[in-house]
Amino acid sequence: MKHFLIIAHKAHTADDFSLNDLPGSAGRMDILCRCVNSALFLSHDLRRDVQIHLLLLGEPDPGRVIKFDGETVRYLNPDERSSGSLIKKALDKDSSDFEIRSTPGVTVRDANLSTLLSEFKQQGCSLYYLLEDGKEIREETLPRGDMVFILGDHNGVTEEEEAEIEKAGAIKLNIGPISLHSDHCITILHNELDRREKEY
Amino acid sequence: MKHFLIIAHKAHTADDFSLNDLPGSAGRMDILCRCVNSALFLSHDLRRDVQIHLLLLGEPDPGRVIKFDGETVRYLNPDERSSGSLIKKALDKDSSDFEIRSTPGVTVRDANLSTLLSEFKQQGCSLYYLLEDGKEIREETLPRGDMVFILGDHNGVTEEEEAEIEKAGAIKLNIGPISLHSDHCITILHNELDRREKEY
Repeated sequence: MKHFLIIAHKAHTADDFSLNDLPGSAGRMDILCRCVNSALFLSHDLRRDVQIHLLLLGEPDPGRVIKFDGETVRYLNPDERSSGSLIKKALDKDSSDFEIRSTPGVTVRDANLSTLLSEFKQQGCSLYYLLEDGKEIREETLPRGDMVFILGDHNGVTEEEEAEIEKAGAIKLNIGPISLHSDHCITILHNELDRREKEY
Repeated sequence: MKHFLIIAHKAHTADDFSLNDLPGSAGRMDILCRCVNSALFLSHDLRRDVQIHLLLLGEPDPGRVIKFDGETVRYLNPDERSSGSLIKKALDKDSSDFEIRSTPGVTVRDANLSTLLSEFKQQGCSLYYLLEDGKEIREETLPRGDMVFILGDHNGVTEEEEAEIEKAGAIKLNIGPISLHSDHCITILHNELDRREKEY
């Protein structure tokens, strides 16, 4: 399984935003919508072995996690409005520490970065953190087991978050010479993983 | 200069569509919006050395070309609705064989694939065509001069178009083992080009 964890500092945590204004009233929710697309879509198919975890840290209820599961997700189309609509439906659910299914393959719960990182570690996942001064991905040996790739939003991650990610043992990875949007990073990561899998 | 040419068979060629329904009433215009994003956006910057040419072949006026120029484009944000809005403004202009500027850095004119290909050739561009049985990009020597990358939409390209592209001397390129959306292909192409430029 490949996991993507996106830390979204401004993403709104209630469903009272307009699908016509995902960047504004929803707190750059458009970034998350594009990440869902990059993580899950193939041409005429979905990546069944992928889960994407959106950590929403905006108002009014910071610390909600929406998970899309490539194996079971339904009603998802590639456009931003489609994933935005499923995110909105998930945020309509009441706050809970337990996962609540909002639509097939989409769940929501309350959690923070620390909880997510320890869960991934307990599951035996290898953690990677995308950073410009990280190790060059093309020269890095990647495990065949479960992997988690951690990415920030348009403002990156905070110093506290970075310290927490490093403490969890995440390896810093670099995917190219230029700083890119998170969804573009996911696409490039997938391409590298696709090539490795073909070689196995 | 890097050019991307996207052939969009269903993309609507008048401005009478809703920004709330880019996939439906606008004929999968969402694909083109994501291609504009992938072609032009860096993190907190734009790719100034890129032009993307959208060949719209849907009804009611098939054969309109909208060009986004990374050097001069304005009012463009990363979300689909933003590029969709600029496309809509371009389609509001009257049909003309000459380029008409609709907003800064965005022009529209009437043209077909044949015209575009001969213009690129006259400008001395190297033509590449993305295809699964093409040459592996990581093993291919790419020129430092102007390049054009030709991509289809969700239905690829027709046999006639493929014949025309091959006749124009385009080299078939492959960017990975799995068939991907056009916007994802653009991101992967850029990553390879970024790496080459860093090495120069």
